[in-house]
Parts: sequence; structure tokens; C-alpha cells
Amino acid sequence: MTNVAPSTEREIKAVLFDTFGSVVDWRSGLAREVAAFARAHRMDVDAEAFADAWRAKYEPSMEPIRNGNREFVPLDRLHLENLHAPLPEFGLDAANFDDRELGNLNAAWERLDPWQDSIAGLSELRQHVIVGPLSNANLALLLRMALRAKLPWTVIVGSDATRAYKPTRQAYQNMAWILRLDPGEVMLAAAHNRDLAFAQRAGLGTAFIPRPNEIGPRQTKDLTAEGDWDLVCASILDLAGRFAGT
Amino acid sequence: MTNVAPSTEREIKAVLFDTFGSVVDWRSGLAREVAAFARAHRMDVDAEAFADAWRAKYEPSMEPIRNGNREFVPLDRLHLENLHAPLPEFGLDAANFDDRELGNLNAAWERLDPWQDSIAGLSELRQHVIVGPLSNANLALLLRMALRAKLPWTVIVGSDATRAYKPTRQAYQNMAWILRLDPGEVMLAAAHNRDLAFAQRAGLGTAFIPRPNEIGPRQTKDLTAEGDWDLVCASILDLAGRFAGT
Repeated sequence: MTNVAPSTEREIKAVLFDTFGSVVDWRSGLAREVAAFARAHRMDVDAEAFADAWRAKYEPSMEPIRNGNREFVPLDRLHLENLHAPLPEFGLDAANFDDRELGNLNAAWERLDPWQDSIAGLSELRQHVIVGPLSNANLALLLRMALRAKLPWTVIVGSDATRAYKPTRQAYQNMAWILRLDPGEVMLAAAHNRDLAFAQRAGLGTAFIPRPNEIGPRQTKDLTAEGDWDLVCASILDLAGRFAGT
Repeated sequence: MTNVAPSTEREIKAVLFDTFGSVVDWRSGLAREVAAFARAHRMDVDAEAFADAWRAKYEPSMEPIRNGNREFVPLDRLHLENLHAPLPEFGLDAANFDDRELGNLNAAWERLDPWQDSIAGLSELRQHVIVGPLSNANLALLLRMALRAKLPWTVIVGSDATRAYKPTRQAYQNMAWILRLDPGEVMLAAAHNRDLAFAQRAGLGTAFIPRPNEIGPRQTKDLTAEGDWDLVCASILDLAGRFAGT
């Protein structure tokens, strides 16, 4: 007999990460690739502004798919469509570039660098639980990113397997189903309060990791945890430490 | 200028493996698990015969899905359905076991041991190309198998992502599409000539690895390569050696 109440804590078997912004630094990576593209074409482009304009199309481009008004297409295709949008704003004409060149620039999303703590944190965490992305990216993109950046995922399931874009409930629940885990056995780790709120509503555990420079020096959003998250961590390494004793 | 003709050899970027029989030894693994189940229930069962009877349902159970007469369901569910079939033949009544017990026996497919050369071979091969399964198993099964057996896959894509069972053309081609590779950049490695024949027709490269004891000492099939395969190897380690120089 024990007078300690049975733990109501869920046993987390997989910690899955929002990837763009939470594990890798999309903004400086895209800006670096845009700058290289501009140099190669002897053009003068504000690379950070271009990266922001490209990224600004990200959420709206998924919306028709979330709403059921467009059939599911993989994120790398949306990225390529979204790349065409800012070109004229920056005085560029898509007709001046061949498909291979634009495809290579589009692959900038596969060449993003991890935040400083990401690899050490994931390497430690994977000693304790299944570690993978829970991203809107498709597997082909996440695989190439992981190979280049040496992200030590246990497993990669892309949005092309769940066929759903966050923050729809299906995106979180299909992921748990594919891994044959209960939603409560899966934890989303993310730098975005909104993503965590939807994950929590879908039954997942939640961990917040701040990335206060994700969208540059003028970031005002997601500087701190704004919900009742299961864990609030300083970094992925800190998050891994919470599992080390279990 | 060179007088060497351009190589017509395809550049293989991923070597994907048939898994049951080619990478892991399903027969002795299933027999071991059936024997343990029988001991736990104080029953006398010919474990190898039971394993063979269970496996005998494997191909027929996928046939309605291949034909479009049944919606896709993951392989672990078919394995569980197939487990019910041989029970009466062996004098057993499913009603005597609870779902958890049968589910645990069904997970025998996740507890199969690699052939002696598999881990060393895959570890070497992954230094050169993407290495993964191209199996009829779903991701949840393949993931648990990989974690237990320490199979060093670069990436795991299950049949639940391709939503197609080999040897349909879609099973091979959807896999290449998900990886964003041309079929000719993907090689199937398998111990089964039939699987290789269908992969070749779908445009994949092919490598044969004999597993002369896969179905026990009386095996008469698949003892040697029976097609015009790109590679005929003695083992996965031998296969890895063919990529070491590239």
C-alpha cells in the first residue's frame, strides 16, 4: 500500500518536433540561399526581405488544403509555387530562370541549419524516446534536411503520410495513428504557442522551447510560453534532460 | 575530349530492402515467439508448423487489396486477422485468449532477428546511399522492428505511406515518388526473384541476395538469381562493398 496517488502523468513514447523555426533556423538559411542565388545572377536583392516575403506565403498556401478546397499536395510543391509570388515584388521575372535554377533555390528549405542546441539535444533525447519531426514538410524534404544537417531523428514521418497540414486535428492524430501510439503518448515540442494549442486539443503532450530570434530581431510573438504546456524548456537539450531520469 | 562512352549506368541513390526474409529471419523468429506463447499457456504446439501456417496467409491476405476489392489496411492488421486462421487447425480457440495476448503474439513480427550480415552490411551501405526498407510492412511495425534489432535504416517508409502492396507497380513507384527519386535511382535488394522481377518492370535497379534457409531446410525456391539483376551478391555486406568504391 502506498499513500501516493497513482500518477496521472502520461507516458510519453515519442517527442516530435515542429521543425521550421523550432529545430532549424529557416530565416537565416533562406536569406543565405537567396543571397547566393542573387550573386550568381548578378542581381541586387534584399535577401532577408525576400526570405520573409517567401515565408509569408507559407500559411496561406496551405489554407485551401486544410479547408478541403484543394487536394493535398506536398509542401515542397507549395514552396515552389510560393517562390513565384515574391519574384515580381523584387523586380525579378521567373521567365529569366530555368526550372532547374528555381528548383535548386526551392531546395533552400532542405539546407537550413539547426539551432545551436538542436543536434546535441536530439541526440540525447533519442536515448529515451522516439524522436522525429511533426512538421508540415513532406518526407523528401525532411530526409534531405536531416542528411545535410545530421539531424538524428529516430524516424521521419512527413505530412505526405498524414496527408494533413497542421494545425488541423488530423495532422496530429494521424501522426499518432501511423506510429501506432495514443495521442497522449506523443508530445509535440515547438517554439509556437499556436501549434502547441492545437496539439493539446488533439490530445498530445506539449513542450515549449523559445526561439526568440526565429523571425529576426523584431520578433514580438512566441517569446514565452502562453499556454498550460506540460513542459517549458530553455532548449532541446533542456528538454532531453527532463527525460533523462525516466 | 574522351573516347570513353558516357556511362549508361544509373546512379543509385537509395538501396531499399525487402525486409521479411531478406533482412530479418521471419521463420525462426515467429517459431520462437509461438513456442513462448504456447509455453505460457501450457499448450503443445508445433511452433514451426504454426509459423508456416500463419505466414501462408500472408500473400493471400493482401490479394483483395492489390485487386482493389478491399480498402488498404496496414499489414499489422492483416497479420492479426491471419493469426486467427491457423488457431483452429492447431486445436486452439481464439476465445481462450484476450486481445492483448493475441496482440502481443502478433507483435512477434516486430521481434524478428536480422540475418548475421544484415546490420554490418546496412551500416556500411548507409555510408554511401540512402538505406531503407521496401516492405509490405507498415511504418509502426518496421519502426519497432528497427528499434529492437538496431537496424540502421537512413529512413523508413512503410506500405501505409505508399498505400500499395508489392508486387503492384504502385508499391515500387510510389516509394520512389515519396523519396523524390526517379525509379531508376532506387534499387531493390531482395532474396526473392519475383519481387525483383516486378521492381525491374517498375524501373528500379535490382540486387539479389540469397537466403537459402529462409523457409527452412527444405527450401527449393530462390536459391539462386533467376533474372537479369543488376547485382548478384553473397550478402548485404557484399552488396555494400559494391558501393564502397563509388
